[in-house]
Amino acid sequence: MNRFGEMHCSIAQAVSVVGEPWTPLILRDLFLGVRRFDDLARDLGVSRNLLTQRLERLMAAGVVSRRPYQERPVRYEYHLTEAGLDIVPALMVIMAWGDKWATPPGGPPAVLVHSCGRPFTPVVACPHCGGPVTADTVTATAGPGAAPGPGTWVLAGGLAPG
Amino acid sequence: MNRFGEMHCSIAQAVSVVGEPWTPLILRDLFLGVRRFDDLARDLGVSRNLLTQRLERLMAAGVVSRRPYQERPVRYEYHLTEAGLDIVPALMVIMAWGDKWATPPGGPPAVLVHSCGRPFTPVVACPHCGGPVTADTVTATAGPGAAPGPGTWVLAGGLAPG
Repeated sequence: MNRFGEMHCSIAQAVSVVGEPWTPLILRDLFLGVRRFDDLARDLGVSRNLLTQRLERLMAAGVVSRRPYQERPVRYEYHLTEAGLDIVPALMVIMAWGDKWATPPGGPPAVLVHSCGRPFTPVVACPHCGGPVTADTVTATAGPGAAPGPGTWVLAGGLAPG
Repeated sequence: MNRFGEMHCSIAQAVSVVGEPWTPLILRDLFLGVRRFDDLARDLGVSRNLLTQRLERLMAAGVVSRRPYQERPVRYEYHLTEAGLDIVPALMVIMAWGDKWATPPGGPPAVLVHSCGRPFTPVVACPHCGGPVTADTVTATAGPGAAPGPGTWVLAGGLAPG
């Protein structure tokens, strides 16, 4: 997905790092504490080749790091870095969308519990007013890195969300 | 990505609907008001075949709908449905992650402005206490649809996030 990495858009940039097939589920498993290669391969049902590729890509992008947990032969545990931990809230928002709009049979497979003690569905909010961030309460405007071209937020053209 | 669609996990379900390559950028463009096939193809720099496939998949999933804006030949505009509008906050959270961790040259291409009038970076919060939702303030527990098997939240195994 290098093509996305060349686009002048932070969604495309993020997708090029964490949007490859399997990657959101690898990040989910690392968050849940599934850290060892064999455990990841088994839990995901993904080929070892593909899992290796994805983990290498995530390490190159600084989202995942690894530490040996065993010598001879050396075996690694994979961990989320600060950047990796920082994508977890996005995964939870995506999970909530899946719970609502693409509910697996039987209902939501997982329930999130906040440190306040309550089960919750995450909300996306404005840090200034605390109000909800929704498609109809937000406008996208040109940022410092705005530029014309494919995959841009097309703000140069003056298009407003609608 | 039907394989993801069969997994017992709402992230996998969401990814199977809105996680295919190009799809997040198509949803972004529809949010920004780029609605016509030719405009989408041009803005994204994606092949017409692939764009057709992605739009058909999004329509089948109920995330996008279309309306004719011209007859003879008939031409369509594509719109986000209620489910599609509901994924926009997740896109904004992903964008914020990209702004921070995979910043395009020149800085963030777009700045979001909330209906309260302030430019903002979205925060993910608990609706009960208002506190931040982060990797270390949330625990995932078994939900009503929890089930063992690959791609599950592995909660049956009693693993805790860590």
